[in-house]
Amino acid sequence: MKEKTPQDSFTIMNELVLPNDTNPLHNLMGGRLLHLMDIAAAISAQKHCNRVVVTASVDNVSFQQPVKLGDVITIQAKVTRAFNTSMEVRLDVWAQNIPSGTNVKCNEAYYTFVALDENGHTIPVPEIVPQTDEEKELFNGALRRRQLRLILGGRMKPGEATELKALFTESNNN
Amino acid sequence: MKEKTPQDSFTIMNELVLPNDTNPLHNLMGGRLLHLMDIAAAISAQKHCNRVVVTASVDNVSFQQPVKLGDVITIQAKVTRAFNTSMEVRLDVWAQNIPSGTNVKCNEAYYTFVALDENGHTIPVPEIVPQTDEEKELFNGALRRRQLRLILGGRMKPGEATELKALFTESNNN
Amino acid sequence: MKEKTPQDSFTIMNELVLPNDTNPLHNLMGGRLLHLMDIAAAISAQKHCNRVVVTASVDNVSFQQPVKLGDVITIQAKVTRAFNTSMEVRLDVWAQNIPSGTNVKCNEAYYTFVALDENGHTIPVPEIVPQTDEEKELFNGALRRRQLRLILGGRMKPGEATELKALFTESNNN
Amino acid sequence: MKEKTPQDSFTIMNELVLPNDTNPLHNLMGGRLLHLMDIAAAISAQKHCNRVVVTASVDNVSFQQPVKLGDVITIQAKVTRAFNTSMEVRLDVWAQNIPSGTNVKCNEAYYTFVALDENGHTIPVPEIVPQTDEEKELFNGALRRRQLRLILGGRMKPGEATELKALFTESNNN
Amino acid sequence: MKEKTPQDSFTIMNELVLPNDTNPLHNLMGGRLLHLMDIAAAISAQKHCNRVVVTASVDNVSFQQPVKLGDVITIQAKVTRAFNTSMEVRLDVWAQNIPSGTNVKCNEAYYTFVALDENGHTIPVPEIVPQTDEEKELFNGALRRRQLRLILGGRMKPGEATELKALFTESNNN
Amino acid sequence: MKEKTPQDSFTIMNELVLPNDTNPLHNLMGGRLLHLMDIAAAISAQKHCNRVVVTASVDNVSFQQPVKLGDVITIQAKVTRAFNTSMEVRLDVWAQNIPSGTNVKCNEAYYTFVALDENGHTIPVPEIVPQTDEEKELFNGALRRRQLRLILGGRMKPGEATELKALFTESNNN
Repeated sequence: MKEKTPQDSFTIMNELVLPNDTNPLHNLMGGRLLHLMDIAAAISAQKHCNRVVVTASVDNVSFQQPVKLGDVITIQAKVTRAFNTSMEVRLDVWAQNIPSGTNVKCNEAYYTFVALDENGHTIPVPEIVPQTDEEKELFNGALRRRQLRLILGGRMKPGEATELKALFTESNNN
Repeated sequence: MKEKTPQDSFTIMNELVLPNDTNPLHNLMGGRLLHLMDIAAAISAQKHCNRVVVTASVDNVSFQQPVKLGDVITIQAKVTRAFNTSMEVRLDVWAQNIPSGTNVKCNEAYYTFVALDENGHTIPVPEIVPQTDEEKELFNGALRRRQLRLILGGRMKPGEATELKALFTESNNN
Repeated sequence: MKEKTPQDSFTIMNELVLPNDTNPLHNLMGGRLLHLMDIAAAISAQKHCNRVVVTASVDNVSFQQPVKLGDVITIQAKVTRAFNTSMEVRLDVWAQNIPSGTNVKCNEAYYTFVALDENGHTIPVPEIVPQTDEEKELFNGALRRRQLRLILGGRMKPGEATELKALFTESNNN
Repeated sequence: MKEKTPQDSFTIMNELVLPNDTNPLHNLMGGRLLHLMDIAAAISAQKHCNRVVVTASVDNVSFQQPVKLGDVITIQAKVTRAFNTSMEVRLDVWAQNIPSGTNVKCNEAYYTFVALDENGHTIPVPEIVPQTDEEKELFNGALRRRQLRLILGGRMKPGEATELKALFTESNNN
Repeated sequence: MKEKTPQDSFTIMNELVLPNDTNPLHNLMGGRLLHLMDIAAAISAQKHCNRVVVTASVDNVSFQQPVKLGDVITIQAKVTRAFNTSMEVRLDVWAQNIPSGTNVKCNEAYYTFVALDENGHTIPVPEIVPQTDEEKELFNGALRRRQLRLILGGRMKPGEATELKALFTESNNN
Repeated sequence: MKEKTPQDSFTIMNELVLPNDTNPLHNLMGGRLLHLMDIAAAISAQKHCNRVVVTASVDNVSFQQPVKLGDVITIQAKVTRAFNTSMEVRLDVWAQNIPSGTNVKCNEAYYTFVALDENGHTIPVPEIVPQTDEEKELFNGALRRRQLRLILGGRMKPGEATELKALFTESNNN
């Protein structure tokens, strides 16, 4: 299976915030954004492995900027690392307000996906070779985030999470 | 402001998995479930505070069971703890397969919400008084989960997270 | 086939009224509510018989309370009686207005469903054994409502509707 | 206010049955059809009164023909009679199967609507003057159907329903 | 294969403009109308050939009238001419504003469709025999519009478009 | 008003083809693609002028490649030229089939938009300064396409279309 780069799976999605996406104060509902981010991330993961994929997890996402009716959401996604049959996808989200011309970063997130064959069984995916410094940092951080996911999912004991200790000694958690 | 119990915000949502919710292998897409969970959790938070609410965060969610086209999803939500203007909501999700009669637990998750007044400004919410042992455990664990959210969101240093240390010494992370 | 109780099919659905569900005065459109009620009732009927079901009829429904954009709709459904291959489902609908904290009963309705096997042919469903006094009253009234359905559907002559005469001598038509 | 004829409100709606409208056996779900019928009927009522309208009731509807994915649904609607602030709309529904070329009548129904002014208050609607024999028969039968609605809604006692007795002495209930 | 008339494929679609169909100024978005027109035209083409059809092209469409939230859109479609495996459909669109009672013609358009058999291969469609003067004019103009489509699609050289010259010598391009 | 470049409005949209977007042969319906293209183009036009925009026209679009359920659609849009209050947007569309790894160009199109102020009146937009050779060619061709639109919309006589003559003497009509 041929190795790939993060750039091979780079995906951009632009969406208009429509009335049905919003609450009575005309703010985008968080669940709708999580849905759009999942689609963008799934497209990215599919570009990496050329397989149907299913979401395996989403890491903690916080919503700090209100996004308004009529705003343009831009979601950028790319695969950071592959683990046998699964892939981690990094997402960056911006909201552009048309009349004011502002464009504000509103979210960062990590989704993971598993690749399936035509019978719905998991199947290995290509390895990834990070190219830029940023891609290498994301590649290295993926191990730590994976340990946190396993602990939070109850499938790893905290004492075994050697990589995760970095989380508690560094201020940057990417 | 009158105190409330977790039962006051208890919310059940049942949904059929329809074709547009699924991928080409007829599995429910994770993002669609995150969207439904957000709506169920927002209804629960609104019952607690009688205000419009906006999603502030979703904690790590893992998807371990495939949910199929035609399955009935049951989402149960209730507020576990209130923090001045925000609320944590616990979600439990089951998928019932009609022909086989199976009903499988497929997800647990925590969403947080912020209450807004009619001008979109944050506003205090009622305190919560847990009644049952399970509700008290969820109430107590909420502090630890809040610290993890702050660290992962880059707004608290790991060294300050006194409550969170429990995460690394207990096997149960709820 | 094992008998079931009405409680076995008890289903709760909570939904937010979104912009696309409303008319230009921001009232929920009746047809959208009929759609949601059909889904809730179908889930209930499927829980009873563990089969795919199709709607056979909806009885007269009246809409007396306006439901507004942003309200939370709660639909409760349970099977009242089974007739060989069909089931009657009783629905109760409330609308909760979040800012005012009011929760108003807005509809009652009866839907009937037919169970289908995997080839789309009708197939017998389990009998039901009502437990509470209310369930027994709903069970008994089901015969009368069935005769009215058959007359209104042109499949029974009014003179044959022995049970239905009760409708014209009682004030309670449930 | 100028009188109108049933033809003034005549409305035709054609719709394709799409995947999300169907159950796992690819049959149109009844609730989706009730939703489409409500929209067609509301358009018809709006053409009659040039006001925003809200659904007041739907009479008993039975579903005897399965409608399949890909079928073309044709809904015809027209106002049969006006009662001060409300209107009764008659609906006829056909399902056309494209490959077989069949076109089957699948439903008849009556919806009623109330007209609202810009503040959401009920407001009188124009009277209707039936032209054809069929329109006159529908106009006359509207009184009888109205009494049945009032009885089923608990707002009229059966003994007062002088018109409704016809239902129990005639075989044709239109 | 039996010949058909344009009237055999005549299709009317009425739709309400809902919130999600509109931009922040409450105007119907052009793309949503193009989508509805495509569905109406596809239904018309399917009535002509009793086959599944796919859109082959849409001719230039201009949007000169704003259509508002709550308006009723009426789309009329009929097949003007058949070309072996393809059909041209003419669409006329009106927008009715309920409170003002106005009904304005807002669009005319031509869509073309190709008929497919159950394996997805193109298959011949019935010929059409125009009956009225208007239908004959549309039938004759179809050749000219077809040449323009082929030129704009890069599949015919302008010099070969003998029929199209009429376009540049007449003021009426229907 | 500051001039802009085509790159300032460059917009990418990626979308998954979902079941409700397809016909019974699982092909993407043309109208759904026209809808997505309109949204992508509107986002691009809004980035150019920082105003709410409405679709003024779509030029002839042909659909030569079937797009299948599960494919990833990529739409690229950028403004080619501004004309006082209107903008022409060029769209390029690809469909990527995940299992086969193919990525096929399936459409090119031009949409035009008009900018509106907060009262819904047309308002001037910034001029555009093409940078690359391709952008300059698109900029120059815009005049010719505009004349064709005006003629097809019945607002210009063919004899006045001096630029359009090029169409009939060149084989490349971009």
